[in-house]
Amino acid sequence: MPQVMVRREFIFDTLRAAFRKFGFAPIETPSMEKLEVLSGKYGEEGDRLIFRILNSGDYFSGFASDEEMIEAKNKGLGGFTRKIAEKALRYDLTVPFARAVVMHQNDLTFPFRRYQIQPVWRADRPQKGRYREFYQCDADIVGSDSLILDAELVALLQEAFDNLGLPEVTVSLNNRKILTGIADAIGRPEKFNSMCVAIDKLDKAGKDSVGEELQRNGLTADEVAKLFELLAVEGNDGEKLNKLREAFAGSEVGLKGVAEMEEVLSYLPAMNVRGEIYKFDVSLARGLDYYTGTIYEVKSNEVSIGSIAGGGRYDDLTGVFGRPGLPGTGISFGADRIYDVMNELDRFPESATMSTKVMIANFGGDSVQPALKMLAELRDAGIAAIYYPDAAKLGKQFKYADATKIPLVILAGSEELNAGKVNLKDLASGEQESVAINDIVSSIKQKI
Amino acid sequence: MPQVMVRREFIFDTLRAAFRKFGFAPIETPSMEKLEVLSGKYGEEGDRLIFRILNSGDYFSGFASDEEMIEAKNKGLGGFTRKIAEKALRYDLTVPFARAVVMHQNDLTFPFRRYQIQPVWRADRPQKGRYREFYQCDADIVGSDSLILDAELVALLQEAFDNLGLPEVTVSLNNRKILTGIADAIGRPEKFNSMCVAIDKLDKAGKDSVGEELQRNGLTADEVAKLFELLAVEGNDGEKLNKLREAFAGSEVGLKGVAEMEEVLSYLPAMNVRGEIYKFDVSLARGLDYYTGTIYEVKSNEVSIGSIAGGGRYDDLTGVFGRPGLPGTGISFGADRIYDVMNELDRFPESATMSTKVMIANFGGDSVQPALKMLAELRDAGIAAIYYPDAAKLGKQFKYADATKIPLVILAGSEELNAGKVNLKDLASGEQESVAINDIVSSIKQKI
Repeated sequence: MPQVMVRREFIFDTLRAAFRKFGFAPIETPSMEKLEVLSGKYGEEGDRLIFRILNSGDYFSGFASDEEMIEAKNKGLGGFTRKIAEKALRYDLTVPFARAVVMHQNDLTFPFRRYQIQPVWRADRPQKGRYREFYQCDADIVGSDSLILDAELVALLQEAFDNLGLPEVTVSLNNRKILTGIADAIGRPEKFNSMCVAIDKLDKAGKDSVGEELQRNGLTADEVAKLFELLAVEGNDGEKLNKLREAFAGSEVGLKGVAEMEEVLSYLPAMNVRGEIYKFDVSLARGLDYYTGTIYEVKSNEVSIGSIAGGGRYDDLTGVFGRPGLPGTGISFGADRIYDVMNELDRFPESATMSTKVMIANFGGDSVQPALKMLAELRDAGIAAIYYPDAAKLGKQFKYADATKIPLVILAGSEELNAGKVNLKDLASGEQESVAINDIVSSIKQKI
Repeated sequence: MPQVMVRREFIFDTLRAAFRKFGFAPIETPSMEKLEVLSGKYGEEGDRLIFRILNSGDYFSGFASDEEMIEAKNKGLGGFTRKIAEKALRYDLTVPFARAVVMHQNDLTFPFRRYQIQPVWRADRPQKGRYREFYQCDADIVGSDSLILDAELVALLQEAFDNLGLPEVTVSLNNRKILTGIADAIGRPEKFNSMCVAIDKLDKAGKDSVGEELQRNGLTADEVAKLFELLAVEGNDGEKLNKLREAFAGSEVGLKGVAEMEEVLSYLPAMNVRGEIYKFDVSLARGLDYYTGTIYEVKSNEVSIGSIAGGGRYDDLTGVFGRPGLPGTGISFGADRIYDVMNELDRFPESATMSTKVMIANFGGDSVQPALKMLAELRDAGIAAIYYPDAAKLGKQFKYADATKIPLVILAGSEELNAGKVNLKDLASGEQESVAINDIVSSIKQKI
């Protein structure tokens, strides 16, 4: 509904302006992808949550007989579904983006900086903060391994949240190679993936529960203790990195992670990123498999609601679609959670409310033509205005202006109009003044 | 891809600004509706073009056995589909809007002015000008039968097309009650619907073909001749209406149509609608069943591509969802055709091109930190800027700027920076000038 929409558009407009200022170009991809493009990209759980589109026309025409159909069905619903539903709805923006990059690779100039604001669909049970249809707002730079770009995304996060009126955020930064270093340092490199999945839950589940999960996954109590010790490394960013460097003496990848982190951190002050909005956080893991370098996560310091933006660097986004070797880095804003935070803190600006400023009351009869002229003049002057469409009772007309949050009402009956005047009423203060028709535009501009 | 997206966003932004100036508030509805909400609303052809969403999980669980399933299937795919696909994708914006109005009727203030810009989906064979997914841009006012609103929509059409840079359009206006009057006048009121469908094709199919269709539908040659005579009524708008009034002497509805048309036309001059952009066109029919009053259709005078906007007044949009008696009037812009027209006429403004204005070339080494500072300063000053992420060969960097249509390149090697200067190169003219670092923002602002 309008109130929500106007506010959501404020968020999208703000993000769009920040994306463009940072040199990102917009793209959109179709809502439907071939099922095979999406299948297997989001894990087993994700696969189940993909919405499938039933083929048009006679979707059973691929089966020669009822018997063949039943046989196919009994072999497993997965294969059957692929026969009757070849298309599916976008589950996120990243996979369709990767598909589109490969498809258009000859028309694109790399590094390609794109942003994308579109809905995605998931067949989840709807609940607070989880919707079947929601917007993702992504920005990625594909085709470069320069770490300057990772730092730029932190600057972009600052720009976006400052402009949204949410400067009090914390951008946690880590590097997946540092987590690899930790897996190496405890002597269990093969446990890297399950380790990341477990660490990702530290915030919500706590240390004890994560420790138990790690042991269930085959780590010894000693290994878990050493892991937690490395995650809890103390000091300022430089000191932390030095301690990790020592611990990673035998891990080439771990050392590379430390060096990458140092490089990213070295760029931030020059880019005017405020020291208090970011922190190096060794325990940040991010669930997604495809991150291989810097990872980001943003939380509000003012409202506890989980991450409101996040992202990371990947070595190879498009290999699965036949174009290996395209590294990139990207972030995603959680528009719905950002909405909730801004709502709770009452941070939406005045401009993100209903925008109609004036209603001309309808007195019918001779007053209609001059009222329509005035309406056209107001709009020509860029003022959002309406004319009440019927000569209803004034009380009803005022109620309408009030309910639709229109702040000013022009009262222009035939008498006033003949005298070249109208009355301008401010609904908030209740004040009413007589204004010459010729001055009405400037009077209103002064008030809004 | 970006070039197209930036231009499409210009169209949407322009329409959005016009909608808001005219007091319309934005809403969005979910992409998916219950299939029963959409079924039967778009005719037989439309029903076939609705995309159905396969139920999640075991979609055959509603059948007790394979036999029951085959039996259900053989009873007809329609009923079977309803069992395995309960949801469907939005086919237009009007039906979901009507459903939403009924659902939220207690929270809305009528007359409710809403606009909506969202994609819709149709399982059509894709071809030029016809897409499986395309945007509709609708504005409606629901809950009033005031004809002032019909006139307002003509003013809104003028505003929107003027601002899109397409002032040379013709808004054809008619009233479905006038068509009823014609059906009455030829003595075949029961043929009203098939008559409208046939007349709708006059433009494309021509008089002979439409005449044949009408006769196939049961009109006599005399009736067809009389029909064409009334459609071809001549004179200025007032004269045409007077002739129709005479012909409609026995048709109450026809006379009401003439009076309504006169009233709508009487409002337009006061609203500053230019006389040359609209015409009363008795032969305008519009295919859709639910129109009952004023109907609109907009064509470009410069490019022949069919209607680029249209709409009409309806007595009862929401009755089918249990809320009868809500009249309204609305228009819909065909964004894809508008895009094609603007493209063909090269009417997109400079601002609707890629917006990044400056690239700082990357010289690596000591120059990185001051370059990042400069980047932050440019962006702080509102200038969309990027820094080439690697110290690649200058030729490659220039090629990148050229390919991504960035007009200005800053060359800032360590030497220049030490001297407090940079070189600013204009790629279009090839001119290069030396600029003090402190003046770089103002120099660039002058150039863009």
